[in-house]
Order: sequence, then C-alpha cells, then structure tokens
Amino acid sequence: MAGKVIIAGAGPGDEGLLTLKCLEAIRAADVIIYDRLIPMSALKYARNDAELIFAGKEPGRHIMEEDEIIRIMILRAGSGKNVLRLHGGDPFLFGRGFEECLAVLNAGIPCEVIPGVTSAIAVPEYFLIPPVLRGVSSSVAIVTGMEDPRKGKSFVNFKELAKAVNSLIILMGASRIRDIAKELIEGGMDPGTPVAIITRAFMENTKITIATVGSVAAGKVVAENPSVIIVGSVVSEGLKAMKLANIKHEEIDT
Amino acid sequence: MAGKVIIAGAGPGDEGLLTLKCLEAIRAADVIIYDRLIPMSALKYARNDAELIFAGKEPGRHIMEEDEIIRIMILRAGSGKNVLRLHGGDPFLFGRGFEECLAVLNAGIPCEVIPGVTSAIAVPEYFLIPPVLRGVSSSVAIVTGMEDPRKGKSFVNFKELAKAVNSLIILMGASRIRDIAKELIEGGMDPGTPVAIITRAFMENTKITIATVGSVAAGKVVAENPSVIIVGSVVSEGLKAMKLANIKHEEIDT
Repeated sequence: MAGKVIIAGAGPGDEGLLTLKCLEAIRAADVIIYDRLIPMSALKYARNDAELIFAGKEPGRHIMEEDEIIRIMILRAGSGKNVLRLHGGDPFLFGRGFEECLAVLNAGIPCEVIPGVTSAIAVPEYFLIPPVLRGVSSSVAIVTGMEDPRKGKSFVNFKELAKAVNSLIILMGASRIRDIAKELIEGGMDPGTPVAIITRAFMENTKITIATVGSVAAGKVVAENPSVIIVGSVVSEGLKAMKLANIKHEEIDT
Repeated sequence: MAGKVIIAGAGPGDEGLLTLKCLEAIRAADVIIYDRLIPMSALKYARNDAELIFAGKEPGRHIMEEDEIIRIMILRAGSGKNVLRLHGGDPFLFGRGFEECLAVLNAGIPCEVIPGVTSAIAVPEYFLIPPVLRGVSSSVAIVTGMEDPRKGKSFVNFKELAKAVNSLIILMGASRIRDIAKELIEGGMDPGTPVAIITRAFMENTKITIATVGSVAAGKVVAENPSVIIVGSVVSEGLKAMKLANIKHEEIDT
C-alpha cells in the first residue's frame, strides 16, 4: 500500500511558530526531508526511527537537486512510507512545494499541504512593521529578489512594481539590493521611501537596518542572506512602534 | 504592576493551523479579546477563569468599535492582567493589530506580536493553488477588496494593479467582485485570466469556484463572504493539482 506525502511549512525559524498540524506531522512521519531554514529544534519531535534527509537549499547552492528530492519523495511514499517534506516559512511562497505536490499527485500518491507562517509577513511583523496599514497602505506585493540563472536577469520587473503597490516585500534579495533600489527609483519611486532590511530573523545576531531607497541605491547599505526587505511608508509607522518597544536597530540616512 | 498585551493571529480557521506560541498564549491569558473568524474551538484551551470578550468584526458590522477594543486592552493590562488579542488569520494583514499594538505601546504597556498563518496564502494553498510559481508567477499582491466607507471608493486601484503583478489575492472582496473584475479588465488584464473564489474555507460548506475575470465581470459569478479570491495563471496550474487530488469545485466558462 502506498504511503502519502505531506508538504508542510515550518514557519520562519522560531519553533513557536510551527503550527499544531505541522508538529503532529513531524511526530508521525516515517521520512522527513527538510530544508536549511526550518527551525532545526523542531526535528527533536521526530520519531527515533524516522529517516531524516537534509535537502539543503540556499541561494545558488543546493545540497540536493529538486529532481532528486521529488524522486525520493515518490520512492519512499510508493513503498508505503509516510513522507513529510518540511519547508522553511510557507511551502508555496517561493519554496518548490507546489511543484513537489503536483509531481507526487501525478505519480498517483496522495498529497496534503499544511500552510505555514510565511517569513515574508512574519519577519517584519515580529519587529512591529506592518505589511499594510489603514490610511497608509492597502496593498502589499511579495516578490523574489533572485535572478533567473538561465536568463541572467531578474524574475521581477521592479520598475513596474515601483508605483503599483503601497508596500513591497522582497525575499532572497540581499545580494541584489542595490540594483533593486535603483530599478525602483527608475520606476518612479521616491528615493526618500523608507526601507527595512531584517537579517537573520529568529536566529542569533538578528540585524535590523532602516534606510531609504535612495541610500540603498547609493550603496550605503550592505545586506546579507537571509534577509527580508520591506519597502514603503509602513516602515516609518513601524519605526514608531519599534522605538516605543526598544527594538534594537540601526538607522541610515532616515 | 502592569500586565502585558499579546497580539496574535489564530490562523485561517482550522484549529490545526494555530501556532504553538498562540496556543501557549491562549492557555496563559487572563483576558482574551477575540474576533469572529478565529477557530472558536481554540477557546477551549483558555483558563476556566479567563475573561473572554467577543469583538465581532465582519465587513460593515462591528460588534465592538476599535476604540472600545483598545480601551479595554489598555484598561485590563493596566490593572495587571495579561491580555491576549486574538485575530483571525494574521493580525497585521488587514486586521487592526498594528494600530492596537501602537496604542498599547503608547500607553506604556509592553506589547508582543505573534504572527499567524494568513488566510490570504493558506486558503488558496490548502486547495493546492500556489500564490507564485517558478516560470508562471514571480510576484503576488495581497489587497483588500473593501471600499473606504468615508470615501465611498475602493482603497485599491485595481486598474494599476492589473498588469503590475503576476498573481493577485483579494481579501474581503466578495461583494465587489464584479466591479473589481471590470476594473482589472479596464487596466489591461486579459478577460481569459483565471480566477478562483474560495468561500467558507475551513468551515462547513466550503465552496470553490473557478472562473475567468471576463465571466466574473459579466456577472456570471456570485461570491459570498468570507471569500479569498485569487487571480492569475497560477489558478490554472492549481486546477491541475485540484483535479488530481479530487478536490470538489465548480468551473464556470473555463
């Protein structure tokens, strides 16, 4: 009898932001294939006899190729195992959870998805920056800052986005942050628009930098991976709350 | 001694999508002020002596005014109670969590935020529709479909959004869905663009309708509250997975 596959999000890195369903799935799984950015302490809930497979995945450097991950999921589930594929954050928001799910279903194996708390929203929010805010921002776009390695260009047209939404959240954009800021300004964004760069959230040495799109474009800000970048007036509002709550941060040109 | 306030997201309605931290906060709270769209079964974890206050909140009809909610939070925390403010979904994504947090901090009371699984992402995803997808969509905007009651007009410029992002997720847009579809087409969106309307997710009688922006604009689709609406080519991809997984849905003009 075939097993099944559960594709779950383990949240942005804090074990407390696992969902109850995800915890239950970790406890029950025969096989757990996990990413680099999950809260590793969550693996302590796995059964002693569970097979734990590290799939790696960081920008530009994969430990396992996606095809190989899918092959193992289908192989193990096909031989009756219950397989849990554990993504950092949410599995469908710039993970490859959907592709994995479709491949598994195409192989005739049942597949269930457990949504997770996405870093895109949770990271700014945990440090009191709202993605949207009545009277300030009624739309937020979530995009990837990565380039398409096959095309050598950005997946996202930042010029077009510059004026279309009130808030912009960029994942995996640290290494290209200066180019992205330049494109936003070329697209008509005010260089004075505030930006927050939150690096290593829910890890040691979290770093929060508040700057402007202009100062980022001028090369005054260096961002490291992993970072969540949020652009828009919501950042100024969040800064008020951060100051009241004494959240440590650095300000550049604000 | 003053108590503190925790502002938490209880997820999209399934008790299993509560986070571990949120569950812990429910168990510890002296006072819980909760919204209409939280998973009500989660309240069984509250202490027997906890004060439970229903804040209501549905489009156009609030049981408690926001000022009153904030007044009670500050009053109770000021008298030493630990107050938990429980929002449906995520507290900062079209909840009023940020305003509440800022007001509490301004009153000199400590405030902590626990991000939640947002319905915007989790609802489509649970039914196998990805918000973004490599090669198909690299950007998703999350917006409110509500009108500003003071201005009698939409908060969001759908015409501008029509071509700026690959995927669009609309919350609280059911009653205005036809107008929104018309605006998207006026903004240059292909009327053949697929739309999914997911109504009463994680409740009884969940209904999933797959249509096109054109058929919605023609008035062929009626949507009820609460719905999550997702627009873009990702819907066609999700439909493949939904069919393989035998997820019940209705198709109109697709």
